[in-house]
Amino acid sequence: MYQGVNASEGIGIGSVMVAVDPDLTFEPHEVSDVAAEKERYQAALAVFCEKTQAQADHMKVAVGENEAEIMAGHIILAQDPGMTDAINGAIDGGACAEQALVDASTMFENMFLSMDDEMFRLRAADIADIRTGILAELLGVEVVDLSVLPENTVVVVHDLTPSMTATIDKDHVAGIVTETGGRTSHSAIIARALEIPAVLSVANSCSALRNGMTAIVDGSKGVVIAEPEAEVLSDYQAKAQTFAEEKAALEAFRGQETVTADGIKKILACNIGSPNDVANALEHDAEAIGLFRSEFLFMDAAELPSEEEQFQAYRKVASALKGAPVIIRTLDVGGDKEIPYLHMEKEENPFMGFRAVRYCLENADQYKVQLRALLRAGAFGDVKIMIPLVTCVEEVRAVKALVEECKAELEAEGLKYDENIEVGVMMETPAASLIADKLAEEADFFSIGTNDLIGYTMCADRGNDHISNLYQVYYPAVLRSIKNIIESGVKAGIMVGMCGEAAADPLLEPLLISFGLEEFSMSAPSILRARKTISQWSKAECDELAEKALACTTAAEVKALLEAAAR
Amino acid sequence: MYQGVNASEGIGIGSVMVAVDPDLTFEPHEVSDVAAEKERYQAALAVFCEKTQAQADHMKVAVGENEAEIMAGHIILAQDPGMTDAINGAIDGGACAEQALVDASTMFENMFLSMDDEMFRLRAADIADIRTGILAELLGVEVVDLSVLPENTVVVVHDLTPSMTATIDKDHVAGIVTETGGRTSHSAIIARALEIPAVLSVANSCSALRNGMTAIVDGSKGVVIAEPEAEVLSDYQAKAQTFAEEKAALEAFRGQETVTADGIKKILACNIGSPNDVANALEHDAEAIGLFRSEFLFMDAAELPSEEEQFQAYRKVASALKGAPVIIRTLDVGGDKEIPYLHMEKEENPFMGFRAVRYCLENADQYKVQLRALLRAGAFGDVKIMIPLVTCVEEVRAVKALVEECKAELEAEGLKYDENIEVGVMMETPAASLIADKLAEEADFFSIGTNDLIGYTMCADRGNDHISNLYQVYYPAVLRSIKNIIESGVKAGIMVGMCGEAAADPLLEPLLISFGLEEFSMSAPSILRARKTISQWSKAECDELAEKALACTTAAEVKALLEAAAR
Repeated sequence: MYQGVNASEGIGIGSVMVAVDPDLTFEPHEVSDVAAEKERYQAALAVFCEKTQAQADHMKVAVGENEAEIMAGHIILAQDPGMTDAINGAIDGGACAEQALVDASTMFENMFLSMDDEMFRLRAADIADIRTGILAELLGVEVVDLSVLPENTVVVVHDLTPSMTATIDKDHVAGIVTETGGRTSHSAIIARALEIPAVLSVANSCSALRNGMTAIVDGSKGVVIAEPEAEVLSDYQAKAQTFAEEKAALEAFRGQETVTADGIKKILACNIGSPNDVANALEHDAEAIGLFRSEFLFMDAAELPSEEEQFQAYRKVASALKGAPVIIRTLDVGGDKEIPYLHMEKEENPFMGFRAVRYCLENADQYKVQLRALLRAGAFGDVKIMIPLVTCVEEVRAVKALVEECKAELEAEGLKYDENIEVGVMMETPAASLIADKLAEEADFFSIGTNDLIGYTMCADRGNDHISNLYQVYYPAVLRSIKNIIESGVKAGIMVGMCGEAAADPLLEPLLISFGLEEFSMSAPSILRARKTISQWSKAECDELAEKALACTTAAEVKALLEAAAR
Repeated sequence: MYQGVNASEGIGIGSVMVAVDPDLTFEPHEVSDVAAEKERYQAALAVFCEKTQAQADHMKVAVGENEAEIMAGHIILAQDPGMTDAINGAIDGGACAEQALVDASTMFENMFLSMDDEMFRLRAADIADIRTGILAELLGVEVVDLSVLPENTVVVVHDLTPSMTATIDKDHVAGIVTETGGRTSHSAIIARALEIPAVLSVANSCSALRNGMTAIVDGSKGVVIAEPEAEVLSDYQAKAQTFAEEKAALEAFRGQETVTADGIKKILACNIGSPNDVANALEHDAEAIGLFRSEFLFMDAAELPSEEEQFQAYRKVASALKGAPVIIRTLDVGGDKEIPYLHMEKEENPFMGFRAVRYCLENADQYKVQLRALLRAGAFGDVKIMIPLVTCVEEVRAVKALVEECKAELEAEGLKYDENIEVGVMMETPAASLIADKLAEEADFFSIGTNDLIGYTMCADRGNDHISNLYQVYYPAVLRSIKNIIESGVKAGIMVGMCGEAAADPLLEPLLISFGLEEFSMSAPSILRARKTISQWSKAECDELAEKALACTTAAEVKALLEAAAR
């Protein structure tokens, strides 16, 4: 039994296939015909790009547009002029194309690795993947091919590269095991999108597991069991069966209203990062968009997106939702989200720094571009503006004043806009929770961002493994804060939603119902399960459970209580 | 009029003396007699150390023990074997002593500057100061001498080095102006200890201000006015007069009880960083020690201080207080406080990281050394243990269990200890505030750490200038949090104190009286003023003001209200 990172839930049982990395060793040699060597490199690059494009096309159908874009990004990176210059320079100096590629790509890889931001570190993995691909072309070596696999294969690889995932024969893969990668790696994201159970970062799995072994991949617990005993195997087969049945049973909730057992109507919404995610959200039966993280529009660009670009993106989502609410969070830059071209200073404590609405209010002209785009998109659907990281009433008033300025400008310019656009607050700071009653007088709605709310309340950085035990929604302090926010909003008569990960937690949902939460926003695959959970509880039952939970003193007591009550 | 950093309050009016840096340029030359050159360096070093020791001795009497230790630290740093090796190595390579010193010290300086921690950056300034001193000896140049000055001199320097401050003729200095340094620089700390008005970081002040000019140094506002108009000058003379009179009037409160206008008894306590600070605290009429920051024992050492060393330090304070309470905070490592030999990992968000009680509970054996020392010191006075950064009841219970373990060990070993030692919670996190009622059931006392409480509640790093406007105690969210903590403690019948900077804020004190705060702990020079403020307010008046303050919506409204009511 091996422990790893639970990267994609579900249970897979199958036969191990260790995909050994191709032999890409070569003998460096000096070249005399520099022009010919450059041509040789260009030819290999061209074939690599062609294959990658084919993989991206395949991926677009098999996995999704976003994932295909990651793949297509490899082509752009491989053709990067900086990299090409470095390679040509090395060849001019007499290096062979292989050596030139290795040197130049390693330099870029190290550059990315040295950056603190997760996004850049992911780029380093992309570079390594590109190097392997082009080097294989130069050497005429076949890279790992996962496009044709026997049924029920447990794929074991050192690192699941995006190019492998792109071509993977997903119907025949029972599970994925890797030696590297975390929950936020591309591999993890894609495994979840493909709904393949995956356990990452299992040390030495490529040597410990051997071809033909039977293996269980428990992607929910992050455990791999090799050559299980008969009893364990049958236990897991039953579990896998139950998992599959439960998933199938959720289909009964497709197209249904979201109501509690005693008929209280709730809204099940989806969190998205780009207009491309809307199709998936609707496919999973989302009733609204509870959080559209607009910063991805900014992060994918080389410069500030124009009003028109933003307007088009927001309108696309608003139109697709056909009048259902779309809550768009204004630029949440800073913290763990860096946008290179904004040249923000590196901070000692970025989560407690110059970010989100603080940055936007200091850069009002830039912020107004976004607010105008949102107002204009509001003419095409039910767009709502959400302000992140609010800590005081002053900030909400300042944003609302800018919205009014924008309205006046749009009016004068004769452009269509939503004059009644709602402006709400993302409730994610201890300060906002403490003054929820005062904020409710200024805001048109609340949406609780539990991810940051937990972190700030418990003074615990979510990304810091040393203190992960403190990063839990079940601490009484966090529950009280959530309760106060919801009840303050309800009392003031405004809509209160939740767009943090806790909204999809079946243990927590009864408490949220008790407190009066109206809208639950989550990732698409969680929607049907949440609808089921909500349907299983009446308000009175939830109230009874909530009373017991609030009487608990420790997180462990709360969690044990909720687990015992879970339906 | 020039704007700078308000580093030491008060108003100084006098005649400018610009202390120009000595000319330390030299012609680098190759040396042949390496041994002689090394001897020349050692001779200069010896003279430097001797003069520095004399300065430190002078400082011990004139300023204080702590400040003298900073000075004495220069000697240790100057004799650092690593630095000596680097200098000898450079001389071996043919460099002259001057060049060897400059190269080696610059290397060390840059090393310190490259570290993120403020403490190390301060070391860089020390290195620069040492370089100047030894270089002056090598070149036979006189460094700036501030030991004999005309009356009412406004000293203007590029950077006030610790060695200048050590010898400064404090009775004749009206004020200090520098071109560099912040509120936490050594210069600022020493200026405050000397009670000399100081404005730091006034750009180009060494060239803008000229010898003989009349200048006003407003250390409270951080403003310097050169050649003021007659009206301005007389205004400031009146202000300086009032300032002096108010300070003198405070003497009437020396030796008095601390009581509100209607006779409610309060405790005025002092925050200290080392046993050496106790004398100063008692001199300023402290009734107790509200916060002894034990980490300074750890930061000044090269390795973990032993139980005996800690015991002696804690006992010294406990004995000096003659039975009055001494609240000792257990090791608050991490965040902005680094202890190099603990080799803690650099974190993305250190304030939300693995620090304080989190670190101590993970290193229980190490923590028990401190707890045993505290228990033993408790036999010599009223020592109380305070746990920093608590976010949940679990942490308090875990510390109390360790205290019980330590008691059993001490009992078995036949060592004296306080079996009834109080264990309290430093209330400084949003989570602790949210569960103050539950914590009050576990804790023997509360002490509110407003510095961190404000930062965590408002999600604003105190050290981040970009968001300093959010770092204010006057935000309604912060006031509510403080109120809830105090009232929860009072309701549970435990002592509630405050050891953050807000306890010394005359604007805030009436609100704290209204909420029921019992102990106000602050830096020594603030004590008499606080006693006066407390004596001016009755509980009923405070309640009336508090009600109005809590009805405010913005920080500006709160502050304006409190300013208008100030007595």
